[in-house]
Amino acid sequence: MELPDPAPAHLVDPSAPDAEDVGAYRLLAADIASGVAVVAARHRRRDVAATVTGFLDVSYDPPTMLVSLFEEGRICDAVESSGAWTLSVLRRDQEGLANWLASPGNPVEGLLDGVAFRRAPHSGAPVLDGALAWFELSTVAVHTAATHRIVVGEVTAMGRGVAEAQADDPLVHYARGYRGLTR
Amino acid sequence: MELPDPAPAHLVDPSAPDAEDVGAYRLLAADIASGVAVVAARHRRRDVAATVTGFLDVSYDPPTMLVSLFEEGRICDAVESSGAWTLSVLRRDQEGLANWLASPGNPVEGLLDGVAFRRAPHSGAPVLDGALAWFELSTVAVHTAATHRIVVGEVTAMGRGVAEAQADDPLVHYARGYRGLTR
Repeated sequence: MELPDPAPAHLVDPSAPDAEDVGAYRLLAADIASGVAVVAARHRRRDVAATVTGFLDVSYDPPTMLVSLFEEGRICDAVESSGAWTLSVLRRDQEGLANWLASPGNPVEGLLDGVAFRRAPHSGAPVLDGALAWFELSTVAVHTAATHRIVVGEVTAMGRGVAEAQADDPLVHYARGYRGLTR
Repeated sequence: MELPDPAPAHLVDPSAPDAEDVGAYRLLAADIASGVAVVAARHRRRDVAATVTGFLDVSYDPPTMLVSLFEEGRICDAVESSGAWTLSVLRRDQEGLANWLASPGNPVEGLLDGVAFRRAPHSGAPVLDGALAWFELSTVAVHTAATHRIVVGEVTAMGRGVAEAQADDPLVHYARGYRGLTR
């Protein structure tokens, strides 16, 4: 049922986006709801971890996921260099943790001193205690997309950081804030 | 704060996942909350559209997104062949539309006869009326990941299918059902 008038649109020339284009995109893209996870890797005997909303379940067979990481970030370097990483999907009551691991100024040393975690079986990368679900992945491909790297991994281990009964209240990111789900 | 005991884990050999591995993964991956969108393309003078949860905002500069599509689906063929596509991010009251465009048995002809849409400015791909936000994209890369194709596109146009004031109630997918957000 095609409506007669065209959609009112903000047009963009992707070869030369200006500040207004980027601003309009940021506003609209903020309206994409997403789960929240912590991506982590063990790199040069140090634990690196960061909050992400840019991750996806890609395939069931074999179990495959991807994460999109800003190419200049510490976590991108750690994930790419180590070749193995974890995703810990956060529950709603882990908002404080999400904020801590999203802070630009958080420390390289002692980042997880106040965060309860265990080690994933293959890589030893941190798995956050209390996660709704967690996955350990082995990188199979890395693709550049604009300012980001798309890291695709196959699942080598997975589990929950919380009892099954508690696993029904995910943290959700929407419109630059955190929310919960209605029942 | 590393906890002493290892995380209880389901281990997977990605080179030979069995039915139990896939089942365990499906269960855990279902706990990743996500927004819901309709991806659409105009291909051979026909409108093709499907509900997706596997899509991401990747970069602001230039505005770049990706969608993950099952490689054997009609929509994957249409998106890849046409090189241009739209994402219409759904509002909570568009759950019926999400179900319709996710139905395996929906028709090739007349798919959008009962769906109000307009045409995107560059490609003429459908943009759903009432969408929280919509984006028109031009494909810049396609990557294979297991059973899926990761299609990366640059935004060439964008807007809302609804008044700004109504744009605060996204449809969210979680645990194989639809939900809304708490305030």
